[in-house]
Amino acid sequence: MTAPVLEHVLLDVLPDQTEAFEAAFVVARPLIEAQRGFVQLELRRCIEYPARYLLLVTWDSLEAHTIGFRQSPEYDQWRALLHHFYDPMPEVTHYEAVG
Amino acid sequence: MTAPVLEHVLLDVLPDQTEAFEAAFVVARPLIEAQRGFVQLELRRCIEYPARYLLLVTWDSLEAHTIGFRQSPEYDQWRALLHHFYDPMPEVTHYEAVG
Repeated sequence: MTAPVLEHVLLDVLPDQTEAFEAAFVVARPLIEAQRGFVQLELRRCIEYPARYLLLVTWDSLEAHTIGFRQSPEYDQWRALLHHFYDPMPEVTHYEAVG
Repeated sequence: MTAPVLEHVLLDVLPDQTEAFEAAFVVARPLIEAQRGFVQLELRRCIEYPARYLLLVTWDSLEAHTIGFRQSPEYDQWRALLHHFYDPMPEVTHYEAVG
C-alpha cells in the first residue's frame, strides 16, 4: 500500500497528568517528525472528556508508520516518553481516502 | 467558545451497506457544507475495520455544530439519509487545539 494514510489514536491520559503529558509531547514530537514518510501531525484535546486527546498523523504510506517508525530507535524513546501516561493503552488504526 | 473546533465521529456502518452509505454520503455532504460556520470535512475509511469510517468536520465554533447545524432543517435530512446505516449510533465529540 503506497497511498497516504492517516494514523488515528484516541489517547486517554491519566487525568492528573495532562499537563505533564502535553510537556512530554513537545519533547517527543521531533522524534516522529524526523521519520521518513512522515507528512503531518495534529494533537488535539477533547472538549467533552478533558483527559482525552486525538492524535492524527499523516504518513505517505502505511508501512512508513507500521514498519519504518515502529522499528526505528526513535520509537523506543517515543514510547518511554509517552506510553506511561495512557490508561488504557490506546488502539491505533489507519484511515485511507474514500472513493 | 468561539475558537475553531474539530468534530470527531467514528462511524460503524452495517458491514453489507458500506457502498450504499458512501453513495448516501455524497448526497448528504452538501447539507453540512452549506451551514454557517462550516469550514471543512473529511470522510475516511478504516484499513483495519473496513466497515468503520472516520468523519472529521472543522467548524468555526462549537455552537456552529451543536446549535446551528443540529437545529437546522438540513439536519433532519442528514439524519434521514445517514443514521440508519450506523450500528451502534456513534458518539460525537469535539476537539480543540492544544496549548
